[in-house]
Amino acid sequence: MSLAELSTRLRVFAAARDWEQFHTPKNLAMALSGEAGELLSLFQWLTPEQATRAMSDPDLAAKVEDEIADVFLYLTRLADVLGVDLVEVAHAKIDRNETRFPRIKDA
Amino acid sequence: MSLAELSTRLRVFAAARDWEQFHTPKNLAMALSGEAGELLSLFQWLTPEQATRAMSDPDLAAKVEDEIADVFLYLTRLADVLGVDLVEVAHAKIDRNETRFPRIKDA
Amino acid sequence: MSLAELSTRLRVFAAARDWEQFHTPKNLAMALSGEAGELLSLFQWLTPEQATRAMSDPDLAAKVEDEIADVFLYLTRLADVLGVDLVEVAHAKIDRNETRFPRIKDA
Amino acid sequence: MSLAELSTRLRVFAAARDWEQFHTPKNLAMALSGEAGELLSLFQWLTPEQATRAMSDPDLAAKVEDEIADVFLYLTRLADVLGVDLVEVAHAKIDRNETRFPRIKDA
Repeated sequence: MSLAELSTRLRVFAAARDWEQFHTPKNLAMALSGEAGELLSLFQWLTPEQATRAMSDPDLAAKVEDEIADVFLYLTRLADVLGVDLVEVAHAKIDRNETRFPRIKDA
Repeated sequence: MSLAELSTRLRVFAAARDWEQFHTPKNLAMALSGEAGELLSLFQWLTPEQATRAMSDPDLAAKVEDEIADVFLYLTRLADVLGVDLVEVAHAKIDRNETRFPRIKDA
Repeated sequence: MSLAELSTRLRVFAAARDWEQFHTPKNLAMALSGEAGELLSLFQWLTPEQATRAMSDPDLAAKVEDEIADVFLYLTRLADVLGVDLVEVAHAKIDRNETRFPRIKDA
Repeated sequence: MSLAELSTRLRVFAAARDWEQFHTPKNLAMALSGEAGELLSLFQWLTPEQATRAMSDPDLAAKVEDEIADVFLYLTRLADVLGVDLVEVAHAKIDRNETRFPRIKDA
């Protein structure tokens, strides 16, 4: 399914629960940051090596997927409320980064 | 463009700069959270009403788009490194949320 | 009790649990940010007015105190591990801010 | 200098700039989390070993001290606005943690 469909599904979800009043840019930015913090907490006591193998532990993998989903849902909802096209701004940012950080090898 | 294409573009971007060594799950979760914090800081002193009108101020709009892009880029990269399908886990999470939070009206 | 005593108590607490191996600057900065995110989440759906009255709700007040404590504990521990004097750097920062942001009225 | 003096200094600083209107619990929690994210970003691409030696690099040390100060200032200000005694809630939390996490060796 596409990002546009996900965005629409979230819009309908919020409307059906009368949550649009809570979904201001300020509140959604807070929720996004809070979920990013929960994702962070899953990795905080792991060594880099343990974190790299996170998805081979089913319990941890389920938590990681859940937190990644939460971050993505709030990001998608925030972009929708602000009228920002996520994929478009992402590519525009990579365009700028390609100038800022020259490639050092073929890949 | 699709999410899969964005993910591939980021993978090539990292490889061409020899950055794969830095793109561990732990480091990417930190970068994601740091960018979410920068996005947050754009809204922190605004009233809810000012934050809602953020995109009508061209300077602020450009900063918001830039930070949203950064959050999305690190989230996409983290999901790729972990082998997580962003759209799939997002829909699975909404499925669970539909059970947890019953709709209160038609929408 | 003083900040120095708190710092010492945390050092002893970590040593008695063999947690010093986990208390690297990187991990503690992650834990600090994660706890700041949990504190944030307590306020995210509240209006500014509701957030201002947070401490008059005993359940919410207990949660706020708990998250503020967690942020402070990780900040104190991080400062100790890095050899940073919290109160000293705080005053140095206010000194700089007093130059950056001139006062507009007597207070 | 004590925490109480720091708290008072910040209160006077805010009043002299007419910033009390911005220093709501919600906004201060956002500012705190944003600064925690900036602190995080200083460590994100470092190996655990590099992060442990952060303070031996004068430029990085100055940035770390600056971000730690910012986190502490917003935490102190938030606690003051909410009427929370930082040191008291910190010790109360360690009391609870001592029960939750038994010591495994003398220290």
